[in-house]
Amino acid sequence: MSLRVLAFDTFGTVVDWRTSITAELAAFGSSLGLQRDWAAMADDWRAGYPPAMDRVRRGELPWTKIDALHRMILVELLGKAGIDGVADEAVDHLNRAWHRLDPWPDAVRGLTRLKAKFTITTLSNGNFSLLTNMAKRAGLPWDCIVSAELFGHYKPDPEVYLGCADLLDVEPGELMLVAAHASDLRAAKAAGLMTAYVDRPLEYGEGRRRPSKIADGEFDYRAADFEDLADQLGDL
Amino acid sequence: MSLRVLAFDTFGTVVDWRTSITAELAAFGSSLGLQRDWAAMADDWRAGYPPAMDRVRRGELPWTKIDALHRMILVELLGKAGIDGVADEAVDHLNRAWHRLDPWPDAVRGLTRLKAKFTITTLSNGNFSLLTNMAKRAGLPWDCIVSAELFGHYKPDPEVYLGCADLLDVEPGELMLVAAHASDLRAAKAAGLMTAYVDRPLEYGEGRRRPSKIADGEFDYRAADFEDLADQLGDL
Repeated sequence: MSLRVLAFDTFGTVVDWRTSITAELAAFGSSLGLQRDWAAMADDWRAGYPPAMDRVRRGELPWTKIDALHRMILVELLGKAGIDGVADEAVDHLNRAWHRLDPWPDAVRGLTRLKAKFTITTLSNGNFSLLTNMAKRAGLPWDCIVSAELFGHYKPDPEVYLGCADLLDVEPGELMLVAAHASDLRAAKAAGLMTAYVDRPLEYGEGRRRPSKIADGEFDYRAADFEDLADQLGDL
Repeated sequence: MSLRVLAFDTFGTVVDWRTSITAELAAFGSSLGLQRDWAAMADDWRAGYPPAMDRVRRGELPWTKIDALHRMILVELLGKAGIDGVADEAVDHLNRAWHRLDPWPDAVRGLTRLKAKFTITTLSNGNFSLLTNMAKRAGLPWDCIVSAELFGHYKPDPEVYLGCADLLDVEPGELMLVAAHASDLRAAKAAGLMTAYVDRPLEYGEGRRRPSKIADGEFDYRAADFEDLADQLGDL
C-alpha cells in the first residue's frame, strides 16, 4: 500500500485561528469604541465549538454548519461581554472572520511542495464555503476541498475519515491525516488512515502550549511543520 | 443580487473528451496490435453515458459513480468489438482515460482570469476523484471541486444545482452555470441559476456540430470561449 492523498485538518494545523480571530475581534471592538480582552474572547469562541459540534454528533441538533454554530456562540459571548445592539450584518461579518484566517508561515510553501507528489485536500469540520473562501484568500493550493459537511458527520466520527477515502477513491491506508491534534489523529488511525502529527506550539498563544502526551511511534510521522513533513516524505 | 460563483460543466465544456478518448483508445489498441474505428468507439462510449445515468436517476440502479458506469459501457463495447481477454488492470487504466482529458486551448487561461473575480468550481456528473485527478493533471485552477456525487443525484436533477448553491452558501441567482449544452443550462435556469452558454463546435469532431436551437436571450450570456466570457464579465 502506498501513500497517495494527504488530508489536512485546518483550524490550528494550517491556519493560526487565535491571532486572526483576536485581531478581528479587536478591530470590531475598536469600530464600536470598546475595550475588552479580545484574546480571551477568541479563546472562548474557539472553546465553545467542540461542545456545539457534540450536540450535533449526539443528535440534539440537526445537521448544522460550523458558520451557524460559530454564530450561536458569538451571540452568546457578545451578550456576556455586555455588547448589545450590534446590527445583524456586523455580526455576520465578524462571524465570517473564520473564513479569513491567516496560515502559519510554512503552510503555503509546504503544501506547494507536498502537492507535487500527493493529492492534497482539507479534511476539516469547517463548512465547505468557509474552507473554499479561506483557501482563496490565503492562497492555500488544495487540489480539492473536503469538509465534514459532505458527510453530515463531524470529526471524530469515522464517517468523515472513511468518506474522504471513498470520495478520493483510495483505500483508507493510502490516505494520511495531517493534524496538530492527537485526538483527531487517533480517530483517523482507528479508521485505518495513516497519520502525521505536526507540532503547532503557538496555537493557543505564546507560552500556552497544551501537553500533547503522544507515545513514541504512535503516529506514522511527526513533523515540526509542513516543510519538515515535505522533507520527510521525500518530495521532489 | 450579484454574481459570485461560476460553476462549470466539464465534459465538452472544459475538456475535449473526444480527442483525448480517441487517442487513449488508439494507444490501447496499438498495444494489442488491433485496428478499429477508435473515434467511433469514443462516440459510442460517450453515447452510452446519458442512458446509464438515467437508470440511476430513475432508481433502476443504486447510486453509482461515473467511473463504474463508464466501465460497464466500456466492457460492453470491447465485447461488441471482439476485443476479449484484456486484463482487468488494463481495462481499469483505459477506463481512467476520463481522468486524463485535455482541456480546450482557452480553458486554463480563461479560468485563471475568471478566478480573479469569482469563485470557480466544477459542477459535473463526473465523480469527485475523476474531477480532482483531471484538474491536477491539466492544471485547471478550480477553487473547489463540486460533483453530482456529493448530492447522490445526477444533472439535470435540480438537487445538483441547488446543492451547489447551498454548499457555497450563495443564493441560486448568485451562481451561474457555464456549459456547452442547452439541456444542462435549461435545468439550471429552471432551478433559479444564472446561465452562460459557451460554444464548443468541435465537441463531436470536425464538421459534426450538433444544432443548438437556442433562442435569442434564452441564457444570460453566450460566449465563444472562456476568454470571451472573461471579457464579457469584465474581469480585471
